[in-house]
Amino acid sequence: MKYSFKNDYSEGCHCDILKALADTNYTQQDGYGDDEYSQKARELIQKEMKNEKVDIYFVSGGTQANLIVISSILKPYESVISADNGHINTHEAGSIEAVGHKINTIKSKDGKLRVSDIKQILDEHLEVPHVVKPKMVYISNSTEVGTIYKKDELEELSKFCKKQKLYLFLDGARLGSALCSSQNDVTLHNLTKLVDVFYIGGTKNGALLGEAIVINNNNLKEDFAYNLKQKGALMSKGRVLGLQFMILFQNKLFYKLATHANAMAEKITIALKKQNITFLTNSSTNQIFPILSNDAIKKLEKLYGFYVWQKIDDKNSAIRLVISWNVEESIVDEFIKVLLDLR
Amino acid sequence: MKYSFKNDYSEGCHCDILKALADTNYTQQDGYGDDEYSQKARELIQKEMKNEKVDIYFVSGGTQANLIVISSILKPYESVISADNGHINTHEAGSIEAVGHKINTIKSKDGKLRVSDIKQILDEHLEVPHVVKPKMVYISNSTEVGTIYKKDELEELSKFCKKQKLYLFLDGARLGSALCSSQNDVTLHNLTKLVDVFYIGGTKNGALLGEAIVINNNNLKEDFAYNLKQKGALMSKGRVLGLQFMILFQNKLFYKLATHANAMAEKITIALKKQNITFLTNSSTNQIFPILSNDAIKKLEKLYGFYVWQKIDDKNSAIRLVISWNVEESIVDEFIKVLLDLR
Amino acid sequence: MKYSFKNDYSEGCHCDILKALADTNYTQQDGYGDDEYSQKARELIQKEMKNEKVDIYFVSGGTQANLIVISSILKPYESVISADNGHINTHEAGSIEAVGHKINTIKSKDGKLRVSDIKQILDEHLEVPHVVKPKMVYISNSTEVGTIYKKDELEELSKFCKKQKLYLFLDGARLGSALCSSQNDVTLHNLTKLVDVFYIGGTKNGALLGEAIVINNNNLKEDFAYNLKQKGALMSKGRVLGLQFMILFQNKLFYKLATHANAMAEKITIALKKQNITFLTNSSTNQIFPILSNDAIKKLEKLYGFYVWQKIDDKNSAIRLVISWNVEESIVDEFIKVLLDLR
Amino acid sequence: MKYSFKNDYSEGCHCDILKALADTNYTQQDGYGDDEYSQKARELIQKEMKNEKVDIYFVSGGTQANLIVISSILKPYESVISADNGHINTHEAGSIEAVGHKINTIKSKDGKLRVSDIKQILDEHLEVPHVVKPKMVYISNSTEVGTIYKKDELEELSKFCKKQKLYLFLDGARLGSALCSSQNDVTLHNLTKLVDVFYIGGTKNGALLGEAIVINNNNLKEDFAYNLKQKGALMSKGRVLGLQFMILFQNKLFYKLATHANAMAEKITIALKKQNITFLTNSSTNQIFPILSNDAIKKLEKLYGFYVWQKIDDKNSAIRLVISWNVEESIVDEFIKVLLDLR
Repeated sequence: MKYSFKNDYSEGCHCDILKALADTNYTQQDGYGDDEYSQKARELIQKEMKNEKVDIYFVSGGTQANLIVISSILKPYESVISADNGHINTHEAGSIEAVGHKINTIKSKDGKLRVSDIKQILDEHLEVPHVVKPKMVYISNSTEVGTIYKKDELEELSKFCKKQKLYLFLDGARLGSALCSSQNDVTLHNLTKLVDVFYIGGTKNGALLGEAIVINNNNLKEDFAYNLKQKGALMSKGRVLGLQFMILFQNKLFYKLATHANAMAEKITIALKKQNITFLTNSSTNQIFPILSNDAIKKLEKLYGFYVWQKIDDKNSAIRLVISWNVEESIVDEFIKVLLDLR
Repeated sequence: MKYSFKNDYSEGCHCDILKALADTNYTQQDGYGDDEYSQKARELIQKEMKNEKVDIYFVSGGTQANLIVISSILKPYESVISADNGHINTHEAGSIEAVGHKINTIKSKDGKLRVSDIKQILDEHLEVPHVVKPKMVYISNSTEVGTIYKKDELEELSKFCKKQKLYLFLDGARLGSALCSSQNDVTLHNLTKLVDVFYIGGTKNGALLGEAIVINNNNLKEDFAYNLKQKGALMSKGRVLGLQFMILFQNKLFYKLATHANAMAEKITIALKKQNITFLTNSSTNQIFPILSNDAIKKLEKLYGFYVWQKIDDKNSAIRLVISWNVEESIVDEFIKVLLDLR
Repeated sequence: MKYSFKNDYSEGCHCDILKALADTNYTQQDGYGDDEYSQKARELIQKEMKNEKVDIYFVSGGTQANLIVISSILKPYESVISADNGHINTHEAGSIEAVGHKINTIKSKDGKLRVSDIKQILDEHLEVPHVVKPKMVYISNSTEVGTIYKKDELEELSKFCKKQKLYLFLDGARLGSALCSSQNDVTLHNLTKLVDVFYIGGTKNGALLGEAIVINNNNLKEDFAYNLKQKGALMSKGRVLGLQFMILFQNKLFYKLATHANAMAEKITIALKKQNITFLTNSSTNQIFPILSNDAIKKLEKLYGFYVWQKIDDKNSAIRLVISWNVEESIVDEFIKVLLDLR
Repeated sequence: MKYSFKNDYSEGCHCDILKALADTNYTQQDGYGDDEYSQKARELIQKEMKNEKVDIYFVSGGTQANLIVISSILKPYESVISADNGHINTHEAGSIEAVGHKINTIKSKDGKLRVSDIKQILDEHLEVPHVVKPKMVYISNSTEVGTIYKKDELEELSKFCKKQKLYLFLDGARLGSALCSSQNDVTLHNLTKLVDVFYIGGTKNGALLGEAIVINNNNLKEDFAYNLKQKGALMSKGRVLGLQFMILFQNKLFYKLATHANAMAEKITIALKKQNITFLTNSSTNQIFPILSNDAIKKLEKLYGFYVWQKIDDKNSAIRLVISWNVEESIVDEFIKVLLDLR
């Protein structure tokens, strides 16, 4: 069996989570997120955030989190601004449109949005009431191409959105990876101040499933649980989600797993760059996009699992390597060796 | 801590599932249901059904299954017929309307639908195109009040629906309990012939989460996976769902758990009936609704967890007891004794 | 050709409207409701209402008005309370569900809602977040069965809704008929205080098409035009709608037409009651529901167009007669004579 | 009052329509499109098309037609391909997303789609089921920038769509203008063979309101009227729509009006080109886009109404002139003179 760098959800979960599931298995708990573990998880996350005023809800996946958050906030004629390669625009089978909203897209090579991008969209939507009304900005951290937002970038976006009465929503399916990047200067506490709502991804950082939606903006808090229920996201055994986040936020496991994945990605990056291999994006997280010759890619595909991401020219393509929270360093070392050899 | 009869999802999962999660934890698997365990689970269920032609998809919960199935089949102006106490009509926060469809309801004391009920709805919707077009019949087995459909009842519904070009959809959140009822004469194989689509509930029968949607009607099979993805139900670690159904359908665990829950419910029913306690419905499954004096209920509430279901008269109410796949017989014996004593 | 009492939209429009269309035909006007006639119509209606603070929008029909108003106000998980025979529940092909909202229905013989009805719905929706959240009350004046609300009834509803934070929405497709009923004590001015939003029907009271949506509640005013555009209701030649309402609200034409229709209906009612014919409802508007023998109905059907509304017993049924703003008194006199003769 | 070239819906309607409205005003007719005039109009259009098998429905506007057609055909996860400047993508306030569907857009300077454009979209949507499934192609004739499709272009699109099982939908809000262009070689008969569904615009070609939806593909015909009703488009006085199309398709009025508008547009175009004024697009219909200096535009704006369409460079912009079916030649002559003088 080939080792797979296809994604960071190829394995089960961290062993501490399995242990906790076993330890608590026969304890009776209330359903729908009213269990003790969910409560404890919420407290731990709030403490980690140094912010007890946020509301926290657990759902099973990222597409679910995105469609619930967006549909809970926007009025029928309001739209959401996203990078064209944003997950909601490309890989969610039209989930946002299915709940009624247009996505206004902006070309973005590095997966990030800037104030100038948003301004452009606003300028194109002045013909009231013939156009949609852009009302939310959707960003991802880390982005689809492994890049991250620096604190000053988020502050600029945040300030602009507040001024323009736009909601700022951060998709954190890979937030762990962003926060543990060597380039990062953002904290969870910062996020509770800078964005209206975001979520913390568990699925891609050591949980079996689960994303924690964090609502900062008081105006968005009322009645939020209805949205979960209506979209089929209120798990009867909510304990399964709560328990996992309880474990992830005890002893900083959430950070440890992401830091390991990032470190292994960086090891590959440094080794390849030394050999003059270039990268599609300037990633400091667990997704990296080295550019290889198509010949090398063909050989590598026989030995490892990964996706070819983008054609560069007739002879070269960028591949995507996603490094798992669970990868062993020896695998990474071997991979580097193999890759450099077969070029 | 009081023992709770509030529902059959108060505990975690059967220990075989926990063991399987641990055993397979570090094996890499493809995402989105393309893992080996999901494939194996589909094969086991097909074999159990003696029908290899059905399509099977795993989702995390019942509301999700309901809204995905219904929205995948109905055109915008088509509606679904349900008992007024059907789960989609009462306890899913408007999920079916949120995907655009009206529910045509029929009063039903025992939670079941008959051909005459459906005929009445059809007769009320002749004024084309001013009314909705009823196009699907939604039934639950077991129902919200613990009753089950006999084979001849399903056959009659099935025949009528085919003739009237109505889709027949069976919500099987508690299908295990129905199939293992002492009154049951229906098999999974029968269901693959009698209804267009149904699902097999795992969450309430020993899994952490998971329902298996089974599509029998060939016309409903094409492209179905898109619906899962769009509604946020395509779990990246689909292995978690597949593995659980693999375990449930190995060694007949699915039936064993439901049979145990039913047997414990029956033990309570027989003991109470002997003492002339009456029941709201004629349940042969793991949900029972004894009628007690409000005084007795108040005393019982101090000792056990359960829901008061319905006022009968000024002095009496029906309570709902849901018996878990995991309850120990000694707890049931003790409960019977306590209940009979405090009357 | 048989004269038809099927509805009040069998003819074209009042001749003053035709004349105004001709007179203004070649004048260039801005589109989308920004024309002079729409502006003038809004001013006339505001003046008639003695309330300049309301916002007014013109749309082409009642179903459109209903779905736009309701979808503009409710959040995805919020529902609207209606009489079971309310137009949105029975004769709009699922338009409200198609924009995502459940209708909570109450049996109502006279088509009206009372505070006790609404209370009951609220009491049935306490299980947050598993149920929908009732957030709007939909009433019609006159109702589907010709009855009207008295001022004190509206005041009681209004007070209760405000207290419970429910929006009160009045469907006025036949508002003219209600306001001109001999039993009426409500004015347009009252309505601007008592309900959050309502509309004034033109189509059934002498216009070719058109309903005027009146928004009283300031919180509902912002951005409302987007909703019209998005639902396909913002007519490019908005002048056609505006001009008609301008004519209807000049010289009190709106009231004159409705008063005539009501008077003719009353003439029939009095004549039939004198001969001991009973009625299904106590209508004081232009829709009346005499109960006749099935034999008499058969004979009458050969001479006049009308709908059989409801079976009363094996030998008798109620028919519906809708009296047009345009009916000539001689036709009514002849009809009375014929009907009384053929019994 | 300045003469306005802002659009082709600034005036009322052709005098023959007004006359017919007056002539038929007091005749009673059935509602909802079951009147004699609608029936006659359908027959006239079918005859003009030399195709009696098409189904025809009348609605009040283009946005309505678009959202009804698209939502009636697509399944929830299916999307529609459009030019980025397509009306559904830019000027309908998110109406298509509001009924649940994503629009896949293609940059198009001339407003037209080619097979190569569609292929590209299909190639980008292979990742089933993570992406939407493109299932319909939306084109406009004439386009938003005045260009038209030649017969061979439509044939190529049609052939490709059939092969790829894509529905082809033609927005004909300005179809009259396209069919009467001097460059046109397409007939209504051709359209019944080449596209699955299209509509014939009345509002912009001499009617007060009204678009005629024509369904060619048999699979799309069943139950279509429900969609009209549900979206609020089934006018109770459907006679108003039917009568207008009856008049437009008697004595070829529909063609005469469009031909006049085109001729007047061409007169301006020729006169301006002679003076070396260039145009943004190669329009042969009633929308033309001359490029003028910003100084000239400022002067012209004092004398005529029109929209500035697009910035060309720092000193020049394209303006949009839309020529009405009703414009007098003397106005056009005067305008040409004025424009050429003030340059």
